[in-house]
Amino acid sequence: MPHSYLKPLLDNNGTKIILLVLDGLGGIAITPDGKSALEYANTPNLDRLAEQGTLGQTIPIRYGITPGSGPAHLALFGYEPLEYIVGRGALSAAGINLPVKPGDIAARGNLCTFDKDQNITDRRAGRISHQDAAPIIKLLNQVQIPGAEVEVRQVKEYRFVIAMRGKDLHPALNDTDPQETGVPPLKLTALVPDAKKAADLMNQWIKMAYQELADQPVANGFLLRGFATDPGFPSYEEAYELEAVCIAEYPMYKGVSRLVGMDVIEDVGQGASGEFTTAEKHWNEADFFFIHIKKTDSYGEDGNLEGKAKIIEEVDQALPILLDLNPDVLIVTGDHSTPSVLKSHSWHPVPFLLWAPKTHRTDLETSFTERNCARGGLGTFPAIETMSLALAHAGRLKKFGA
Amino acid sequence: MPHSYLKPLLDNNGTKIILLVLDGLGGIAITPDGKSALEYANTPNLDRLAEQGTLGQTIPIRYGITPGSGPAHLALFGYEPLEYIVGRGALSAAGINLPVKPGDIAARGNLCTFDKDQNITDRRAGRISHQDAAPIIKLLNQVQIPGAEVEVRQVKEYRFVIAMRGKDLHPALNDTDPQETGVPPLKLTALVPDAKKAADLMNQWIKMAYQELADQPVANGFLLRGFATDPGFPSYEEAYELEAVCIAEYPMYKGVSRLVGMDVIEDVGQGASGEFTTAEKHWNEADFFFIHIKKTDSYGEDGNLEGKAKIIEEVDQALPILLDLNPDVLIVTGDHSTPSVLKSHSWHPVPFLLWAPKTHRTDLETSFTERNCARGGLGTFPAIETMSLALAHAGRLKKFGA
Repeated sequence: MPHSYLKPLLDNNGTKIILLVLDGLGGIAITPDGKSALEYANTPNLDRLAEQGTLGQTIPIRYGITPGSGPAHLALFGYEPLEYIVGRGALSAAGINLPVKPGDIAARGNLCTFDKDQNITDRRAGRISHQDAAPIIKLLNQVQIPGAEVEVRQVKEYRFVIAMRGKDLHPALNDTDPQETGVPPLKLTALVPDAKKAADLMNQWIKMAYQELADQPVANGFLLRGFATDPGFPSYEEAYELEAVCIAEYPMYKGVSRLVGMDVIEDVGQGASGEFTTAEKHWNEADFFFIHIKKTDSYGEDGNLEGKAKIIEEVDQALPILLDLNPDVLIVTGDHSTPSVLKSHSWHPVPFLLWAPKTHRTDLETSFTERNCARGGLGTFPAIETMSLALAHAGRLKKFGA
Repeated sequence: MPHSYLKPLLDNNGTKIILLVLDGLGGIAITPDGKSALEYANTPNLDRLAEQGTLGQTIPIRYGITPGSGPAHLALFGYEPLEYIVGRGALSAAGINLPVKPGDIAARGNLCTFDKDQNITDRRAGRISHQDAAPIIKLLNQVQIPGAEVEVRQVKEYRFVIAMRGKDLHPALNDTDPQETGVPPLKLTALVPDAKKAADLMNQWIKMAYQELADQPVANGFLLRGFATDPGFPSYEEAYELEAVCIAEYPMYKGVSRLVGMDVIEDVGQGASGEFTTAEKHWNEADFFFIHIKKTDSYGEDGNLEGKAKIIEEVDQALPILLDLNPDVLIVTGDHSTPSVLKSHSWHPVPFLLWAPKTHRTDLETSFTERNCARGGLGTFPAIETMSLALAHAGRLKKFGA
C-alpha cells in the first residue's frame, strides 16, 4: 500500500488535483553558462506559477539511480518502486487493456523471420508494416490449446502482446528471444518448479503457432519476452480515495495508470493543447488528473535540446486551458531526467513545481528551472512523497494525532 | 551489503573516481559576519570546481548525531553506520595490518604503571617514549599460552594492539581499563556465555604477561580495551566492482579502508601535495582513490581556525595534481564537521562538492563554503548516498527497470 499512514487521514472533500508529467523533464547544464532545455525554453506561464507557488526537486528512485519509465511513474503515484515491481509483459498488456488476472500470464512478442532451419534471420520480420502484420497476428490469435485461453493482440507494426489465461499459471519463464540472429529461438523453460504447467502449455501453443505461420513469406516466426502476471497493486481509490483518470498518448503510461486503477481515457487529443482540452472535457468525471507529455523525453533521448525546449514551450502556451479549470492543486514535474547532452534517462533530481493557490507556501524562486528548483521551498525529496504533498495541498488529509 | 539495489546495475566501465576527504572539514560561523575555516581560507581552485560542478551537504549518520571517525568513514563508503559496527580493537588491528579473522579477537592496549599492590598509578606509564616502550612490548609478544596464538604489536609510544588467534574466540569481553587511577585493573569476564573460552585464555595470558613485566621500572603493567573481531564487511570489489586504494597518513583511516577491502598504500607522501603525488604514482592501479587529509580535523579539535584554514589552502594549492589526472568524478568533502569554535567533532552537515565534467548538473553556487553547500544542487542528503552519486556520475550504473 502507498504510505499506509495516509489511509486513516483521508478526507474525500471533492477538491481537484492535476499531476502534469513532462516525461524526462530534467536536464543538465554542464557548465555555468550552459543551459538545460528547461532553462532554454521561454516559459512565462510556468515561471509565473513558479513565482506564485513553490519549487523543489525529486529523487525518483534513490540517489544515483537512473529509472526506467515504469518505476519512475510508480514512484510519482506513491508506490515504492523497489517494492512494487511490474514485469514488462503485464505492463504491455495493461497498456493495450488486455486483461491479465492473477493466475494468468502475459508476454511481449515480435514477429520475426526464420530461415528453413528455424534460425532467426530478422528479429523484426523486416520491420513489416502495421497493416501487413495485422492479419498474421490475427492468425496467431486463432491458435488455441486445451487447458488455457490465449489472446494475442497487435500493439504496433511487428509488436504484439500475448495473454494466456488459465489456472495457476506462473510467469517465471525465460524469454525465447535470443537478442541475436543466426540462431534459433531459445527453448522456453520453467525457471521455478511452479512454472512447469505454464511452460508446458506455452510450449504447446508456440509449436502450433509456428506451424500456423510456416507458409508466411516474411513473418514466419515470433519471439516472446518479459513473461509476467498481474502485479495486484492497490488502487488509487483504495489508497487515496481518489477517482483518477489518465490522459496519455502512449500505451506504456496508460498501462502503468491502469495498474493503479486509473480510468484511462482512450480518445485523447494530440499534443499539450489536445491533452489539456481532453482534461477539460472530462473535468467533472474525476478528482485526479494524470496528464502525460511524452515528447520531452523522446527529444532528450535524441540529444535534441531545442526540440525538447519547444515541447516545453507548447506545454507552457497551453497551460491556461488547465488553469481555467481552477484546479485546487497543479503539480508540474517529470518522472525522471533525460538530459539532451546524455541522450538517455539519468539519475539527476527532477524539477518539481507545486501550485495550490489556497494552500501553497511561496518560496524565493521566480523561475521554473533545475537550478531554481534545487533551491526551492520543498527542498530535495523522494518522488514517492508527491501524492502526499498533492493530497495535503488539496485539503484531503486530516490531522495526525490529537 | 551497501545498497543492495546497486549490485545488479553495476557497469565496470573503467572510469575513475577520487573521493578526497578532508577530515572534520565542516565548521560553523556562529554570527552572520563570522567565518568558518572553509570560509576563511582562500581557495580559488575549489571555488572554480564549485562554480563548474555541484554542491550539497551530507548528514553523516543521522540528524543531530556527532560521529566518530570510524562510522563517519563507513557512511562515506556506503556502509550504513548503524548496521556496520566495528569494534575499536578490530579497527586498530586493521590500521596496523595485524591480521584478525572471524574466531580471532583483538584489543587495544596501553602500557601502564602499577604500585606494589597492582593499583594503577599512571594509565599511560608516564607517557613512556616509543623507543623505551618498544622492547617491553616485544616482551609481551613473547608471552604465549597453549590453545591460542598471541601477537602483540606496538602502535605508537605506550599504545599497542593485541590479537589472539584461536578457534571460536568470542569478543564479548569487558575492558580491563577502569579509566581511573588508584584502583586495580578490572577483572576480565565473559559478557555472554559464548565468550567464556576467550575470557579464560585471555586471563591466562594476562596473568603470565603481568609476571613478565613485573620487574620493569615504569611500564610494569598494561590495560586492555575494545575487544572485537573481524566484522566481515563486504568489500568494495563485491559491493561496487571497484578496485579501490586508500591514500592516508594515519592508521585509523588505513584500518577502516582495509575493512572494506581497499588496497592501502603504505609509502604515502606527506601533506596534500605528497598524498596527491602518491595518487598520481598509482593512478593506473585502481578505479577508486580514497585520499584522506587528517590535519583539518586536528586543528579543528585544537580550536585553531587559522591552522585549519591553512591546511584547506594547502589542499587547494595542490589540487591541480589531481585535476591533471583527469578523473571522471572528483568529490571533495569531509567525514564530519569539526568546528574550531567547538574544539570537537560535531553533528553539523558536511560540505560536499561533486565535479564530474561530463555528467554533473551545474547549480547556482560559485564558492565552496558551508553556506553555499546548504543551497547546492544536490540538496541535503545522507552521507551513505555518496557512493551511489559517485558511481552514477562515473557512468557506472545502468538503468533500473524498463
